[in-house]
Amino acid sequence: MTAHRPFADPVGEDRPLVNPAPNTEPVQELPAVFRRYRPHIVSGLRQSLASNHLHVYQMLRYSMGWSDANGRPAAATVGKAVRPTLCLFACEATGGTVGSALPAAVSLELIHHFSLIHDDIQDRDEMRHHRPTLWAVWGEPKALVGGNTLRVIADTFMWRMAEEGVAPDKALAVVGLLTEAYLEMIEGQYLDLSFEGRPDIGLHAYLDMISRKSGALIRCALNLGALIGSHDAATVRAFRECGRSLGLLFQIRDDVLGIWGDEEATGKPVGADIMRKKNTLPVVYAMSRAQGRDRDLLLSIYRGQTVGDDEVSSVLEVMERVRAREYAQSLASEYREKALEPLSSVELAPEARRDIEEIAEFLLVRQH
Amino acid sequence: MTAHRPFADPVGEDRPLVNPAPNTEPVQELPAVFRRYRPHIVSGLRQSLASNHLHVYQMLRYSMGWSDANGRPAAATVGKAVRPTLCLFACEATGGTVGSALPAAVSLELIHHFSLIHDDIQDRDEMRHHRPTLWAVWGEPKALVGGNTLRVIADTFMWRMAEEGVAPDKALAVVGLLTEAYLEMIEGQYLDLSFEGRPDIGLHAYLDMISRKSGALIRCALNLGALIGSHDAATVRAFRECGRSLGLLFQIRDDVLGIWGDEEATGKPVGADIMRKKNTLPVVYAMSRAQGRDRDLLLSIYRGQTVGDDEVSSVLEVMERVRAREYAQSLASEYREKALEPLSSVELAPEARRDIEEIAEFLLVRQH
Repeated sequence: MTAHRPFADPVGEDRPLVNPAPNTEPVQELPAVFRRYRPHIVSGLRQSLASNHLHVYQMLRYSMGWSDANGRPAAATVGKAVRPTLCLFACEATGGTVGSALPAAVSLELIHHFSLIHDDIQDRDEMRHHRPTLWAVWGEPKALVGGNTLRVIADTFMWRMAEEGVAPDKALAVVGLLTEAYLEMIEGQYLDLSFEGRPDIGLHAYLDMISRKSGALIRCALNLGALIGSHDAATVRAFRECGRSLGLLFQIRDDVLGIWGDEEATGKPVGADIMRKKNTLPVVYAMSRAQGRDRDLLLSIYRGQTVGDDEVSSVLEVMERVRAREYAQSLASEYREKALEPLSSVELAPEARRDIEEIAEFLLVRQH
Repeated sequence: MTAHRPFADPVGEDRPLVNPAPNTEPVQELPAVFRRYRPHIVSGLRQSLASNHLHVYQMLRYSMGWSDANGRPAAATVGKAVRPTLCLFACEATGGTVGSALPAAVSLELIHHFSLIHDDIQDRDEMRHHRPTLWAVWGEPKALVGGNTLRVIADTFMWRMAEEGVAPDKALAVVGLLTEAYLEMIEGQYLDLSFEGRPDIGLHAYLDMISRKSGALIRCALNLGALIGSHDAATVRAFRECGRSLGLLFQIRDDVLGIWGDEEATGKPVGADIMRKKNTLPVVYAMSRAQGRDRDLLLSIYRGQTVGDDEVSSVLEVMERVRAREYAQSLASEYREKALEPLSSVELAPEARRDIEEIAEFLLVRQH
């Protein structure tokens, strides 16, 4: 299928591979479906962290971008909220209400934020979205506990499904699916860690790892939304299948941005993931395609201790020679098509079909 | 009430305060009620971690003491399993079956172990129970994710309640109470971290903190067991109240062992908690009672950077002068009495009453 393409690819062929000029374009706008659900999501998230009785909630509000480190209100920098948007969309598209899916949507976003907090501790990342990370401000022990708190708030927020009229058996199924997705996510994180420093990770192992690490929650978002909105098992399955491909698409684009993304937009320097020797698709691909001196170079860099600017440049050159970025984008593009396929047999309003096409297109070309 | 006292107090008056001789006594035996439930608990725990498909489970089995770091079976060193024992006891004592409470009991123990794994990361503890900790063997990122995995396995194991015939509404209430207790536990951990380096923590704030940090799960264990076993709200409340005092008793004894406990039994050197400047009851008490030079000494040590052997000896001397250990044991003893009070109005078989008296007595004098 050929969707209209309202969003230009910001890492297209015509932009330099290394050290692009600072981004002077306006920030890429989110598709309408994201903007439509945003007020609901923000309101739900704020309710989930409204408690004031412990300092830990202040830290968590900081982590959401609503306050500075001293608890003063800050210009709210809400992220894309991909997962809750997908969940609310799937629920409305299948006949449900925003309210009934909001507890699950908010929980998904809280779990995502929890994983970012722990990721930053693991990776010793001091900045995220141009702000100091939790552990960098409050120290590792508090950040660790803060992350765990966010995780359990996600659990308790799900209980609001009863108030929203979700039937108990459906609510139990939702809780079960979210828990399974969460388990799959952390199993994927563990796999990712196990892959570190191994130059022999093939495409299959890589796709399996990201389908857990990033894919589980995205797949779950569409699955839960459809489950709450619909009584038809085939419809729920179709949304789940759509989510499976969207999850892979999301992470592959993330991998591209992690290497060639604009620093202003992503908050990370160009080549950041190379410096960290992360097992991303361009690396896995380059490792499998590079030969002779190029291959030796990659192996010596990925087996070495530290990666400096020179090594990053060398890796980028090898990637350019094997056309790793083009490969990654084309694979992501395939997953965009695969994501829309299962929905072709589902009865959807024209607006809903346009929404999911816009979402898939956005995930393919997003800048941040 | 005057319970029989089958267990001698191993840190009694007649033992030296500092550097006791290595323990040559036989290891303190657990009360019969612990031994009775142990096979069930071990079997349930092993089922919960039976999955073999990812390396993370091997790491978790190591953390339970069932295998060495290479996955080879080890002489199983199962801990006291206080929480699951309390849960199974409360269920049987109120008319339920072991099987119906086992999913909750196992979940409680898994959550406890999860918190130990994260605690060790936070505290940079390299040894626990004479074995290297998870992060010391596998590194911090994997240990962090491993802890999170254990936490979610606890969630999924609860689902077995349905198979054990627990009614859905009761199962939902159990899940809700456990989640709340878990949230309270990590809020307590956060409070504990917030108290660090503050010499002004009073008794009230200290008790509030430990009633969350350690008390929440122990209270929950009796609460859940009684809830599954009984249909009588007053009975459930009585067990919950009993658990409230047992939790305080448990932690106060833990504080005593953290300072004066036998290294062989606890796996920690004498004065370990002093060296770490932990806000334990003997410290809180000594801080409130010491005067003049003693108080200045405590303040300078607890405000200083590092605490060496000399400082530990000085603190122990101040504690001896204000009789901090005797105060802590007597407060623990009060909580033993308070724990049994609410059960006096509950109809219990004589064996069950003897069991809970033995449990309370054991928690008061335990060596490890």
